[in-house]
Amino acid sequence: MRIITLTTDFGTRDWFVGTMKGVILGINPRATLVDITHEIPPGDIRAAAFVLASSYQYFPEGTIHMVVVDPGVGSGRKAIVIQTARYFFVGPDNGVLSLAVAAEKIKAIRSLENPKYQVQPRSRTFHGRDLFAPAAAHLACGLSMRSFGRALHSFKTLSTNAPRVTPSGIQGEVQYVDCFGNCITNISQRELARLRGPSQVVITKGQGRFPIKEFYDAVPAGKPVAVISSMGFLEIAINGDSAAARFQIKVGDRIRIQSGNR
Amino acid sequence: MRIITLTTDFGTRDWFVGTMKGVILGINPRATLVDITHEIPPGDIRAAAFVLASSYQYFPEGTIHMVVVDPGVGSGRKAIVIQTARYFFVGPDNGVLSLAVAAEKIKAIRSLENPKYQVQPRSRTFHGRDLFAPAAAHLACGLSMRSFGRALHSFKTLSTNAPRVTPSGIQGEVQYVDCFGNCITNISQRELARLRGPSQVVITKGQGRFPIKEFYDAVPAGKPVAVISSMGFLEIAINGDSAAARFQIKVGDRIRIQSGNR
Amino acid sequence: MRIITLTTDFGTRDWFVGTMKGVILGINPRATLVDITHEIPPGDIRAAAFVLASSYQYFPEGTIHMVVVDPGVGSGRKAIVIQTARYFFVGPDNGVLSLAVAAEKIKAIRSLENPKYQVQPRSRTFHGRDLFAPAAAHLACGLSMRSFGRALHSFKTLSTNAPRVTPSGIQGEVQYVDCFGNCITNISQRELARLRGPSQVVITKGQGRFPIKEFYDAVPAGKPVAVISSMGFLEIAINGDSAAARFQIKVGDRIRIQSGNR
Repeated sequence: MRIITLTTDFGTRDWFVGTMKGVILGINPRATLVDITHEIPPGDIRAAAFVLASSYQYFPEGTIHMVVVDPGVGSGRKAIVIQTARYFFVGPDNGVLSLAVAAEKIKAIRSLENPKYQVQPRSRTFHGRDLFAPAAAHLACGLSMRSFGRALHSFKTLSTNAPRVTPSGIQGEVQYVDCFGNCITNISQRELARLRGPSQVVITKGQGRFPIKEFYDAVPAGKPVAVISSMGFLEIAINGDSAAARFQIKVGDRIRIQSGNR
Repeated sequence: MRIITLTTDFGTRDWFVGTMKGVILGINPRATLVDITHEIPPGDIRAAAFVLASSYQYFPEGTIHMVVVDPGVGSGRKAIVIQTARYFFVGPDNGVLSLAVAAEKIKAIRSLENPKYQVQPRSRTFHGRDLFAPAAAHLACGLSMRSFGRALHSFKTLSTNAPRVTPSGIQGEVQYVDCFGNCITNISQRELARLRGPSQVVITKGQGRFPIKEFYDAVPAGKPVAVISSMGFLEIAINGDSAAARFQIKVGDRIRIQSGNR
Repeated sequence: MRIITLTTDFGTRDWFVGTMKGVILGINPRATLVDITHEIPPGDIRAAAFVLASSYQYFPEGTIHMVVVDPGVGSGRKAIVIQTARYFFVGPDNGVLSLAVAAEKIKAIRSLENPKYQVQPRSRTFHGRDLFAPAAAHLACGLSMRSFGRALHSFKTLSTNAPRVTPSGIQGEVQYVDCFGNCITNISQRELARLRGPSQVVITKGQGRFPIKEFYDAVPAGKPVAVISSMGFLEIAINGDSAAARFQIKVGDRIRIQSGNR
């Protein structure tokens, strides 16, 4: 029994995800399939990378994480599998795996080239079905890394902005907006701990003032609040409502934390 | 093999549901996971309670039903597991389990307190992952109820309005609007049977007149119809269209049935 | 272990799909359930038939494909199971199975009539739960076709328009619009091969001109392109955007391919 997780921008309206699962179960009927999400905004490599990095480590060792957000499908971009000390990651080499793998110990990287482990004839438009699903299924059967293709020594990574800590506070940015409208920043609990007495989070572009609390319901319904999110990052929210909608916050917006009590 | 069902307001866009499944499968790789829905309107405890009450009894005995609609996450609200003669129910103690459990024979109630059966360090914002998922997984492994925490003798229940039956008819209300726009009332088949010759359902706020039929397609496409829904409640519908949209019906709206043939 | 796929218009917001899975697992706890989609537009038999025809053959032999898009539920329409050389198909007899079965060798057709293999009491509004789910589950247990009801010798089929190939080009139509806004036509790779040097696809109703390429990213982002879709049909697209939205294309719209280089 091996777990294969699926993260894509395929949506759930058409047959794309079901077809990939059919291909996987045809190769390995005992695989356990878990959807992370199929609602990554079309082609949004950065969102997919963040979703994967936020979830992969809650799965048992040996899990195979497959990500298909692949705007370059059919072009010259490589298709890869990365083995780390604990997991396997399968996807296009466009950076989508990089935020998760950054925290893991890499053991091997291979290019997915061997036609024997692909659906034939291979389409130029649906590598989720023809390339990535069979690779994940064969990994779940215990196929060796070297069977897939030549060894690679690097893979594409996404640039990330670290928050800037100054005497007067921290400046960071919004990394991800979830379906509740909670805005997850790149400011971690560790950086926050370096400030003395941070009492307010101030969004520079608006009037929102977000007291840092331990949980959403620590402020009255409808009131702004900042919490440490379940992934360890500072998160801007409104108790029971959408901070993104109320304050028009989007990914990339700057967030400033002022030090001291004001 | 044990089934765990999941009902949440987490949506399917982010990684929340996938992460809970990873935690469950890490504890019990043989659990069978079934999504009821993850699209409960955010924080809508009553909708979640109705969805659970409409579905739980179609699962085999021993199934573990986990519900995470939890606007008070991190606050003082209790987290509980209820064992009935046939099922287990896991969720926050905010009434979300109460409509389903009302029809079952309760055997034990426990508070989820034992840190040994929680993800550590436990977040204050994602108890679905850190508290409820591990509890469900350990139940699926056969862990005893008393391992989780102290025994409780009650749990929070939701108030419900019974329909009012008078000589001239029945007055009830809309309990739930489904994704087709069908409006499920709180008037049951039993109450309806007490009327002689009910021939029309009249919505007091509009002009809709809904003849009671055995199935949707018993009226022409686009025409109003009332049927006994698959859960045994009277349901207001339009054949092939949305009654909720056409007549602007929402949860809590009053529905009146007039007795006799007019 | 048997796979059961589910294709419905039930949406994922309510409890309908979860309930069907509960019924299936109660009868056959070892069934592997795979969702194709539950977001077929309500009552859209043709869309469901196309989705099934695009996905069923990627599942291993013996898979049971269950489709519940059933606007005539409760009326006189028959409920059927079709056994082909490789698969089983379960659904209402309204044409929804016909596009997939057209490519398969039929071995038997039976009417679902035996109350022993239905949820009792059977509702008139939810045959997915009461009729089709139990039939699929019992098939997965190996129940014989003849147990379900009398043999049938035909089933309802959907009409389809073949593309028209003339000396000056091909005229076809849009069969399906996917969630990316890609518009899949009824013009197959085979018909395209009969043209000499087709260099442009021209939509008769608009100004879109779509060069035929091997993959989406062969044109710059935001530019129109036509590719052979993963199912072998010509597909109208925009690299990284929605062709359906930009050119207001919908199912049934005519597509013309001009022969020769212009």
